Amino acid sequence: MALPNVSKPQLERYPLYLTYLKNLDSNSYVSSSKLAKDLDLNEEQVRKDLQVVSKRKGKPRMGREVRLLIKDLEAFLGYHDHTNAIVVGVGHLGQAFLNFEGFKHFGLNVVSGFDIDDKLVGYSVNDKPIYHIDRLNDLVGKLEATIAILTTPRSSAQEMADKLVRAGIKGIWNFVPTHLNVNDDVVVENVDLASSLAVLSYKLDIKFKEVK
Amino acid sequence: MALPNVSKPQLERYPLYLTYLKNLDSNSYVSSSKLAKDLDLNEEQVRKDLQVVSKRKGKPRMGREVRLLIKDLEAFLGYHDHTNAIVVGVGHLGQAFLNFEGFKHFGLNVVSGFDIDDKLVGYSVNDKPIYHIDRLNDLVGKLEATIAILTTPRSSAQEMADKLVRAGIKGIWNFVPTHLNVNDDVVVENVDLASSLAVLSYKLDIKFKEVK
Repeated sequence: MALPNVSKPQLERYPLYLTYLKNLDSNSYVSSSKLAKDLDLNEEQVRKDLQVVSKRKGKPRMGREVRLLIKDLEAFLGYHDHTNAIVVGVGHLGQAFLNFEGFKHFGLNVVSGFDIDDKLVGYSVNDKPIYHIDRLNDLVGKLEATIAILTTPRSSAQEMADKLVRAGIKGIWNFVPTHLNVNDDVVVENVDLASSLAVLSYKLDIKFKEVK
Repeated sequence: MALPNVSKPQLERYPLYLTYLKNLDSNSYVSSSKLAKDLDLNEEQVRKDLQVVSKRKGKPRMGREVRLLIKDLEAFLGYHDHTNAIVVGVGHLGQAFLNFEGFKHFGLNVVSGFDIDDKLVGYSVNDKPIYHIDRLNDLVGKLEATIAILTTPRSSAQEMADKLVRAGIKGIWNFVPTHLNVNDDVVVENVDLASSLAVLSYKLDIKFKEVK
């Protein structure tokens, strides 16, 4: 299918719709205005977002059938097309990702971990083997891994990213608070917890410290 | 200090600057144009961002002294004012947060965990005790906790958020992929991994599937 051009904020809203819809009766109907109100979003924005993922028209005054909208959203987000991922850097966060089974619902299979630590290599976490980083070139293809979840220390993140790209990884989900330089063939999506925490702390300051 | 009005994307950039600056020689100088180029940002935006956090002027043709800019950024982000946080929901991700000591550098002390599971309550993770959720009202004040890191299952997230607010928590760092309803006195910052993964998957599709 030809993919429509969708902005990053718009893409980020689709999983929110899905979460919300799954709490509703699947045989009920939901309107864009109801969705917008309950999720604190703009109604016109919600209407446009849904038009992109679903060719079906809603019923006047009722909206769209929840069951079918869920189906269209899941198809759009590729939740039925499974992609294999490896975890690179098996520290506390890396182990949490190996243990967490919930990404399967989002189309992501976490298949194994990679590390340099001999105390970890050769062991398994949640039945997922941990290999030495030196085996990346050899194993990325065999594991059919497209995505790497990067959870190394900051000091080795760029070096690992370079190795991942050379081994054939196409997407890096980067949890290390650093800017990665990769060529244009590779997609990097950053989850920067320091940035998120900065937003939270600042909003708290605005609310509670300014009145001092 | 009176806090300037700063947008969310702007706030999210400050930790990126800091990470970048810490890789430089602290006695060197850096210009807004160099920062912008290396971080793929707009130069005018970088200049404005830095003016907000630092009253010091840069030197013509050299820019700002790295050491002083780091100092100003850390002060602005409150990295020297420590805030106590509790982890609510001690599953794999919750345990990773209890084990991770890195938030200290961002002014956040993770002091203890809360859960409903009797197999966890009474134990410690990384020397941080795990208490029963029923003790929130009793303990939030004693622990001087302002922030809760929410890592419960989706089904109990709203109920826990209500309990946290009643117990006096002012900020919820929400890692559960669900929309929380809280009153305006409380700040919620969402880290939605499903949304982040949707962005990554979509960009991969654009690059690699459209050509099929």
